[in-house]
Amino acid sequence: MRTVEWVEGGVRLIDQRILPERLETPLYRDYHAVGRAITDMVVRGAPAIGVTAAFGLALAGFQCASSEPAAWQREVQAAANELRQARPTAVNLGWALDRMLKTLAATSGHPVAEARQTLLAEAQAMAEEDIAINRRLGQLGAALIEDGDTIIHHCNTGALAAVDFGTALGVIFTAHAQGKRLHVLVDETRPRLQGARLTAWELKQAGISFDLITDNAAGHFLSTGQVQLCLVGADRIAANGDVANKIGTYPLAVVAHENGVPFYSVAPLSTIDLALPNGAGIPIEERTADEVLGLQIAGAPVAPAGSTARNPAFDVTPHRYLTGIVTEKGVARPPYQHSLARAVNG
Amino acid sequence: MRTVEWVEGGVRLIDQRILPERLETPLYRDYHAVGRAITDMVVRGAPAIGVTAAFGLALAGFQCASSEPAAWQREVQAAANELRQARPTAVNLGWALDRMLKTLAATSGHPVAEARQTLLAEAQAMAEEDIAINRRLGQLGAALIEDGDTIIHHCNTGALAAVDFGTALGVIFTAHAQGKRLHVLVDETRPRLQGARLTAWELKQAGISFDLITDNAAGHFLSTGQVQLCLVGADRIAANGDVANKIGTYPLAVVAHENGVPFYSVAPLSTIDLALPNGAGIPIEERTADEVLGLQIAGAPVAPAGSTARNPAFDVTPHRYLTGIVTEKGVARPPYQHSLARAVNG
Repeated sequence: MRTVEWVEGGVRLIDQRILPERLETPLYRDYHAVGRAITDMVVRGAPAIGVTAAFGLALAGFQCASSEPAAWQREVQAAANELRQARPTAVNLGWALDRMLKTLAATSGHPVAEARQTLLAEAQAMAEEDIAINRRLGQLGAALIEDGDTIIHHCNTGALAAVDFGTALGVIFTAHAQGKRLHVLVDETRPRLQGARLTAWELKQAGISFDLITDNAAGHFLSTGQVQLCLVGADRIAANGDVANKIGTYPLAVVAHENGVPFYSVAPLSTIDLALPNGAGIPIEERTADEVLGLQIAGAPVAPAGSTARNPAFDVTPHRYLTGIVTEKGVARPPYQHSLARAVNG
Repeated sequence: MRTVEWVEGGVRLIDQRILPERLETPLYRDYHAVGRAITDMVVRGAPAIGVTAAFGLALAGFQCASSEPAAWQREVQAAANELRQARPTAVNLGWALDRMLKTLAATSGHPVAEARQTLLAEAQAMAEEDIAINRRLGQLGAALIEDGDTIIHHCNTGALAAVDFGTALGVIFTAHAQGKRLHVLVDETRPRLQGARLTAWELKQAGISFDLITDNAAGHFLSTGQVQLCLVGADRIAANGDVANKIGTYPLAVVAHENGVPFYSVAPLSTIDLALPNGAGIPIEERTADEVLGLQIAGAPVAPAGSTARNPAFDVTPHRYLTGIVTEKGVARPPYQHSLARAVNG
């Protein structure tokens, strides 16, 4: 089962909000609902968001009712504008829609029925490519892992964050499959606990040794020599190598750097935004305070009634804290200005 | 109402495990139960633990039944050994018991009934001194806060962490009372969420402006220039200024340092352990995995069944990341080797 796929004329998603308690796979037949599913984090993870948006636009192609090609094209373009607003930080969403719009433009003047199939075929291709790219990321990244390593992993970057397999977690799956013994310290990743809920679930299914830790504890394990490597994903990477990723990535990278522990971001080239010179330009989504305030222990709310909260969902890690960025074209190293541009354009 | 006090021939504690949902104040008439209350974190916070142990030993004085002074002394000494095991990291516990044992030794040969009252009077004196010291910490520390500051605070260091008033949070209370406008970003402080539960509750009652944030988010606010000061407490400070404090303090200090944001530990001199040359010798308590795995969202467990966790309760912040240490004798500055020794012995 894939995180996102096209079935029965609609988009089927694994509802990641209720894992690991229940596995539900709602089917979306309305592209507005697909946009809301991205906003509400039914699906999350930069690569998964990109492919979901692509399928969402393919769905819009079938929903948009004009039989006149030019009118239909305008309708689909409007749908793309709507889907583009679903979440701001992961550039893969805009990247996927741009690619779909390029395909749309290429169908200009073609009969609507044919153009609809072309759009869907493009989204299908992107889903297949995502898996192939992830497998390649896994191969390239696994070379960074040595037998016996303990690895800190933040958020979820596994099969659930992509169409299948995953990015940083895919690297861990690959090293495990190669027979390397490894242990993962799984950051629980407040506020939405993607580590505790999703990464722990994926590692358990893969039979990989792990311990859950609070995000607060990562520093202790780094400073006491118990960690050999940190692996994270990325939601947007600027031209200079600054990485926007799940909130908490930045302090983890700073502390890893301070302790000489290698820190890699693993991401497909679609995550790289060469239009932004550095991370200062990356829009950081601030989500509802309920994600922070909704926590319970033993059925009781944790924070006193009437509390307020701030909830930035991402932070920016300046490139100087990174050891490298694993892409499907190889491991980019400083100066990223050159290595990333070469990977994207070369 | 005080966090810990002697009433009706027993030790009354605020049960901090169930705040802010309910305010319960169990009365302990058995020193074994007082030790368990410290272990189970009915009471927590280094100064509060110290005074609770002192009252626990006073209670043991009444429980120990020998009427012969030397035999009674041996019984009380055994009780002190038991209480000393309650928690390992905060040195205030051992410090308070050492002071009580010195008083005990001074009653050698005195009638048991008189010695019991002497022990109780010493514990009472320590409770009063704790409040006076906290007020002094508040005055000295408040000078570090400027009008309009936004302050990150980790864990709970308020009235609930001491007999009354608090250490780092006492500094914030004092600055607020002086009319300084300030805003506190409250780290929720996984795993036991003392920030979300206790600090938010105390700030709300004091009418001080705050927002709750996940521990992951502190780095984002530091790196984007939204924070002017970090204040934390301490559980044990080595002779060179290395500070053991609630897990997550170390990464916060590293990131504050990296961004040039002043970072102070606020602690009474009883927290300083000159017997330890540096933080490597501080015992770090690892608590039950249930504190990590017991989290719920909307009534459902977060981590998949059968997950394991690591749960260090403290970490050590090397002194180089600290701007200063606020004690009741003034703000100690580098080199701490000298400033701390002078504060303790001078």
